Amino acid sequence: MPIKIDSKEAALKFIEDHDTFLFDCDGVLWRGNTPLTHSADTLKLLRSKGKQIVFVTNNSTKSRKQYVNKFTKLGIDAKADEIFGSAYSSAVYLDKMGTFDKENKKVLVIGESGLEEELHEAGFKTLGGADPALNRDFGPEVEKYAIRDESIGAVVCGLDLKINYLKIAYAQANLRDPRVTFLATNVDSTFPATDMILPGAGTVIKSVSFCSGREPDATLGKPSKAMMDCILEKFKLDPKRTVMVGDRLNTDMKFGANSGLDTLFVLTGVDKVEEANKFGVDPTYYADKLGDIFELLE
Amino acid sequence: MPIKIDSKEAALKFIEDHDTFLFDCDGVLWRGNTPLTHSADTLKLLRSKGKQIVFVTNNSTKSRKQYVNKFTKLGIDAKADEIFGSAYSSAVYLDKMGTFDKENKKVLVIGESGLEEELHEAGFKTLGGADPALNRDFGPEVEKYAIRDESIGAVVCGLDLKINYLKIAYAQANLRDPRVTFLATNVDSTFPATDMILPGAGTVIKSVSFCSGREPDATLGKPSKAMMDCILEKFKLDPKRTVMVGDRLNTDMKFGANSGLDTLFVLTGVDKVEEANKFGVDPTYYADKLGDIFELLE
Repeated sequence: MPIKIDSKEAALKFIEDHDTFLFDCDGVLWRGNTPLTHSADTLKLLRSKGKQIVFVTNNSTKSRKQYVNKFTKLGIDAKADEIFGSAYSSAVYLDKMGTFDKENKKVLVIGESGLEEELHEAGFKTLGGADPALNRDFGPEVEKYAIRDESIGAVVCGLDLKINYLKIAYAQANLRDPRVTFLATNVDSTFPATDMILPGAGTVIKSVSFCSGREPDATLGKPSKAMMDCILEKFKLDPKRTVMVGDRLNTDMKFGANSGLDTLFVLTGVDKVEEANKFGVDPTYYADKLGDIFELLE
Repeated sequence: MPIKIDSKEAALKFIEDHDTFLFDCDGVLWRGNTPLTHSADTLKLLRSKGKQIVFVTNNSTKSRKQYVNKFTKLGIDAKADEIFGSAYSSAVYLDKMGTFDKENKKVLVIGESGLEEELHEAGFKTLGGADPALNRDFGPEVEKYAIRDESIGAVVCGLDLKINYLKIAYAQANLRDPRVTFLATNVDSTFPATDMILPGAGTVIKSVSFCSGREPDATLGKPSKAMMDCILEKFKLDPKRTVMVGDRLNTDMKFGANSGLDTLFVLTGVDKVEEANKFGVDPTYYADKLGDIFELLE
């Protein structure tokens, strides 16, 4: 059973035992567009004690730069360098694979502008993404997209609110060539919006995957170990002094546990501490909310 | 090993042993928009001998009436009553389930006009389908579609060349209610078009299925037994005197074999007779092409 952080002593020890704090965002720092009580204050407290902070999000629609705006709007200090999203993670992964011919090959992006932006920053040339030429019905004049384009060396898929048949056909036609790398930013089945649940990135991945007869060569995003490896390497972290904070058992908690990190489970999301067994995870700590740490030490 | 129909005697016996001939269309009668040699003549020959003919197609985008036009264009006689498509099959199935409250509930159609038409003919009220209101980007003004509509009692999904995020969200929001029936017209991963392979109905089904966390309650279309049961019942057929003719081992041949029918495998599609073992099927007969029957008896 996880240790509950409900005393000043527990909160102090939690802070002392770790140098780096990885944070899931939605359900931990905010819900939808509402900041959660004292989350921002807890982050400030950690910073004042010289702790390192990294924000880890599966949202692939925004680049790190775009994500900073969201933090600012919600009154939370964050630098682009502290944010680790699945779009950035995909770009880093493709780069590290070392087999992609950046000079002569392009990446087909099925996803939004954030994903494109991260790939461009990493030096990749892209096709697809937010290109308005793809926002149209399938028909004779766009059939060319359903034919293999030899300039494409990888297909990277993420959440795309403008997904359509043409884009699926475009991805499929190129994925039929086994030499083309297939990356998925994440495979979340849904994501919570204000008052509703919406289809997640996994919806796009599953359709592309099914018609092309291929599974992604790698899936970034929590809980994948590929993403954690990218984080640990980029920030040169000691896993023993790092803790993952999140509200989801099967993504955040599994993500931390899979790499031997301590984990803090907060109850401001949909999951309950009693459900931990169901997902085969055992968080190190839990708290009613992240803001409790600030409140206990105030 | 299947018996090859390559002599007058074999062709005659094949005809004499059966009263009803079920035909797959693409790859048997035509390929793309080109009629296959003497296929139409073979159908005429069978008709002249008083044989019953049924056309069985997984194409859910056209209603039976719409499909007749395709036959006529390709010079083949066919009546709407002889055509059994997965759209029609879905309407019949939903009707036969007997649990759907036609008066007070509607069917959400994720698919094209043919599917809508068949549901209307069977007396269902529908939403979605070819409604142009759904052909738009997801955003605040269409968020209402991502919220459960209590008037919807079933979601029927098929191939939709205008599939988009809004439609997927619409289906998902309603499928989260376990009282809503979920039918798939068919789950073909792809379909062949002229010079290219395109994503099939299964692509739509898999995305809707993944984000709603549900598998279809029934999948119509070959090789599902649900479709064969509909056919056998509608035409009051004797399975022992019925033969299924097709070019695909894992759909057409499996479809016939699953219900104990004789099967004729024709080599005018992509599959080869040597591959039968791979799909665990053993056709009763095979022929280079359907037109051979006409040619052998000419």
